[in-house]
Amino acid sequence: MTKRAIIAGSGSLPGLLLAGGPAKVVTFSEEAPDLPGAAGHIPARFEKLGKLFYDLSVAGVREVTFAGAMSRPSLDPAQLDAATAALMPRLMAAMGQGDDALLRDVMALFQERGFRILGAHDLRPDLVAEPGCLAGEALPEADVARARAVLDALGPLDVGQAAAAAKGQVIGIETLQGTDAMLRFIIDSAPGSGGVMVKRPKPGQDLRVDMPAIGPETIHLAAEAGLAGIEIAAGAVLMLDRDAVLDACAETGLSLWAAP
Amino acid sequence: MTKRAIIAGSGSLPGLLLAGGPAKVVTFSEEAPDLPGAAGHIPARFEKLGKLFYDLSVAGVREVTFAGAMSRPSLDPAQLDAATAALMPRLMAAMGQGDDALLRDVMALFQERGFRILGAHDLRPDLVAEPGCLAGEALPEADVARARAVLDALGPLDVGQAAAAAKGQVIGIETLQGTDAMLRFIIDSAPGSGGVMVKRPKPGQDLRVDMPAIGPETIHLAAEAGLAGIEIAAGAVLMLDRDAVLDACAETGLSLWAAP
Repeated sequence: MTKRAIIAGSGSLPGLLLAGGPAKVVTFSEEAPDLPGAAGHIPARFEKLGKLFYDLSVAGVREVTFAGAMSRPSLDPAQLDAATAALMPRLMAAMGQGDDALLRDVMALFQERGFRILGAHDLRPDLVAEPGCLAGEALPEADVARARAVLDALGPLDVGQAAAAAKGQVIGIETLQGTDAMLRFIIDSAPGSGGVMVKRPKPGQDLRVDMPAIGPETIHLAAEAGLAGIEIAAGAVLMLDRDAVLDACAETGLSLWAAP
Repeated sequence: MTKRAIIAGSGSLPGLLLAGGPAKVVTFSEEAPDLPGAAGHIPARFEKLGKLFYDLSVAGVREVTFAGAMSRPSLDPAQLDAATAALMPRLMAAMGQGDDALLRDVMALFQERGFRILGAHDLRPDLVAEPGCLAGEALPEADVARARAVLDALGPLDVGQAAAAAKGQVIGIETLQGTDAMLRFIIDSAPGSGGVMVKRPKPGQDLRVDMPAIGPETIHLAAEAGLAGIEIAAGAVLMLDRDAVLDACAETGLSLWAAP
């Protein structure tokens, strides 16, 4: 019996995690996902969390992993099952405090029902980096220090996961729009300036459900922006996937390091 | 005898300051500037600061105002006069510490020779705002607070003068590329999200030579980005010029406030 389930959002992560061992796949749609390795599909609705918990238990699932981007659901009140209806005041309160609070509360619901939450890196430890050089050459130290200082300063504000500096000057700070948007900003406004991007979790970010990620597109955008390299936090930034990221580094000449 | 001189860089500020009273105009070029109100032109070279101090003294100038953007000079060592040659070690050291340090040192040179440095707002107090509403309606308080918090956090790092937030989320943080580049980023990546931009000096910024500024282009870009309004620091952000800025607010419907 498969005791793991992956609660699958969009993107490549659910598929990559299935390579880490057998798991059932939960999606918030009737349609079975295009995930060949799945040990069965459990369709779910946000309005029927009671049914989802029941289906998971019947299937013998004890461990769940949230994987991939999920958009905030629109709920049809007529569809609510009894368990979900009873949870609505609590879920609505969490929703009012933002996406992070909602996610934390949904995780708590699973834990209260005895499920263990595993992070993506628990299923695929190879998707995060060990400390040290992953590709290329040493990064300009002053720029790394400057970008880190920006993230340190903004940490308590829960703003962004990435910052970039070149020649000692800050040329990009991630905001709501994300890392790729920041890199496109640098491509448009400060091309070819060299420098470094640092990406790492925000303080207090729950890595089991919300780990920063980079992919080959990140590497290509950083190279197009003229950066010399990227520093990620060892063990705390997903490479989606590792081979594709390292291939992109080899192709572009971008350096990639993982800081302890 | 006119005892004031404006050390004129590019942009509209030198012309606006001449409306505040008669002044000689110093430019780092042989060509007389197209500034009808000028009470005489003093051409200067960065390599001949000794000659500039002499010319200013002969002209009776006691007060100088730095106005408009000046690019970092490229110096021809063969052209150095004796006074400037003696100052080179000091100027080179300041240059190595960045533009702000260089500017502070150039100001100190003028002060050591007995010149008084006046800010643009000393010549034209109407170019900065009194506290309160300049145009439009009340700004969304949560977004103002969020943008201010970002600037507070980054203050010690000397990064940018502006930040923008919408619906409680940070959508733009000014970096080396400046305020307009940040607004273009929002136009590209988060259009129509509403919200507010806050612009104010960085802690320790010398307002006599380096005051933040907004112009009608800033207002139009902010409106194009879908922002509801802008908050500037009263007495500490130049409006270039005030009428054009307020006209742009009226035209776009953007709100503009000055925080005490």
